[in-house]
Amino acid sequence: MKKALAIDVGGTKIYNAIINENGEIIGEIEKHHTPKTFTEIEQQFKEIINKHENDVDIIAFSTCGEVNNENTKIVGSTGNIAKEYPTMAFSSLSTKPVFVENDANCAAWAEYKIGASKGTATSVMVTFGTGVGGGIIINKHLFKGKSGAAGAMHFKMYPDQRRQCTCGGWDCFEIYTSGPGLTKTAIEITKNPDITTYDIFDGVNKKDAQMIEIYNRWHSDIIAGFIGLANLFDPECIVLSGSLAQFVDTQLVEQKVNKEIVTSPTKIYKATAGNYSGMIGAALLAFGKGDLNG
Amino acid sequence: MKKALAIDVGGTKIYNAIINENGEIIGEIEKHHTPKTFTEIEQQFKEIINKHENDVDIIAFSTCGEVNNENTKIVGSTGNIAKEYPTMAFSSLSTKPVFVENDANCAAWAEYKIGASKGTATSVMVTFGTGVGGGIIINKHLFKGKSGAAGAMHFKMYPDQRRQCTCGGWDCFEIYTSGPGLTKTAIEITKNPDITTYDIFDGVNKKDAQMIEIYNRWHSDIIAGFIGLANLFDPECIVLSGSLAQFVDTQLVEQKVNKEIVTSPTKIYKATAGNYSGMIGAALLAFGKGDLNG
Repeated sequence: MKKALAIDVGGTKIYNAIINENGEIIGEIEKHHTPKTFTEIEQQFKEIINKHENDVDIIAFSTCGEVNNENTKIVGSTGNIAKEYPTMAFSSLSTKPVFVENDANCAAWAEYKIGASKGTATSVMVTFGTGVGGGIIINKHLFKGKSGAAGAMHFKMYPDQRRQCTCGGWDCFEIYTSGPGLTKTAIEITKNPDITTYDIFDGVNKKDAQMIEIYNRWHSDIIAGFIGLANLFDPECIVLSGSLAQFVDTQLVEQKVNKEIVTSPTKIYKATAGNYSGMIGAALLAFGKGDLNG
Repeated sequence: MKKALAIDVGGTKIYNAIINENGEIIGEIEKHHTPKTFTEIEQQFKEIINKHENDVDIIAFSTCGEVNNENTKIVGSTGNIAKEYPTMAFSSLSTKPVFVENDANCAAWAEYKIGASKGTATSVMVTFGTGVGGGIIINKHLFKGKSGAAGAMHFKMYPDQRRQCTCGGWDCFEIYTSGPGLTKTAIEITKNPDITTYDIFDGVNKKDAQMIEIYNRWHSDIIAGFIGLANLFDPECIVLSGSLAQFVDTQLVEQKVNKEIVTSPTKIYKATAGNYSGMIGAALLAFGKGDLNG
């Protein structure tokens, strides 16, 4: 059975593990802090690859940033990582083949192959964390679009410039439903500039009326966005992942979404492929032939 | 060369024509008023089919309403046509094979095969008229979703219930950018309940400041929606069709959309496949093998 060295690259942490064709993690998961500079990041990649490349058939990166349709490099900017990171020449890092894909797309693929959307043909995965990521499976292929960036969850919640998003645009779904987006809503409602997402979820547990109001607003925003996704993609399911997914009332979301859409009912699931779904999806995509449809 | 009897079914008119594999209309285009009752509509279909079925290889319907993935029947409701219309047994209308597809999907396919999006792999077509329809081509296949309804342009412009859409939902793109949507905006701004889209476009020509304000608001709404579509689908182009497309400043829309998206630039085109693109697309899809990807 083939093996991949999977490397997950985020703004704060880099993980690596060896993964087989069943999507099983073989041996230990190694964890590193993401260095500040491009040169240090490249050096970190080389150390990981030198240590493991002789034991595997392919190197599979699951990375922040959108990745081109050739799966060789980052396109566009990536936010919370060294600004030269998109210039990384991934293929020159190893003598083995190197495959690169966006982390949300990888996680969506892992959910489709071994997780919550297994057995469906068309699904949308949305990750709620520091940002909001998306990965879309259409007719059993990862949907990439013309430049690899399809599935960017930057559609507008308002047309009239209320909150600027981290992407530079205005009022994207991300800036209302990510952790920072939820915090902005909470600050608007409480006028407390120091409120955190912890305060909100803790307050909901303690039945604090204002925290419940904020929590409900967050759900309304998620539901509003999902109604659009369900009407545009007519998916079998929408899968929620990321650190905030655990706080979402998926039963409520599913009920409200299906009450308002013009397409047929969709299921709302929480992700089940685990914390390392990015690495698993990257490995499974790297092994696959024809899994990407441009 | 194969020929199809194409029949376009709208809420007010039914057209039919014979179309060949090049998408060329052979002979005359016949036009009928859409009858009020289901029985009369069925009778009209039978008359058209009896007259022409011996001259063609297949019957191809381009119809209002979403159509299932087997291309045999309508799914869901269809708005401005006899309420029993979705129960039409299309395949029993002829001894020849009968193919059925949604009219916006057919028009999108015509644009892809012979019109504005020809040569692209991924495109979004949006029709602006009494409603707003959508047809999406992904990797050279018509994107249908799980039940055939993908591409419904019912994503929200606001999350907080301002205008109810004809679909029953709230604040859909359609209810801001269709003809009736634009009229609603105009009534809100002018407080004149009798204003028409003609008044608006005529006023813009005459440089009326208030009509220009309404026109600009309509463009802002279209741009807001297209930013979401461009980020979600990363298409090579967005094609505008329908009776209102002629009034859209595509150059302005393209510039504003590309300024704000996180994906790579998209082109904004007006449709070029003509007024009968629905029939042409239906015929070309009916001839095609594997053109639909569920």
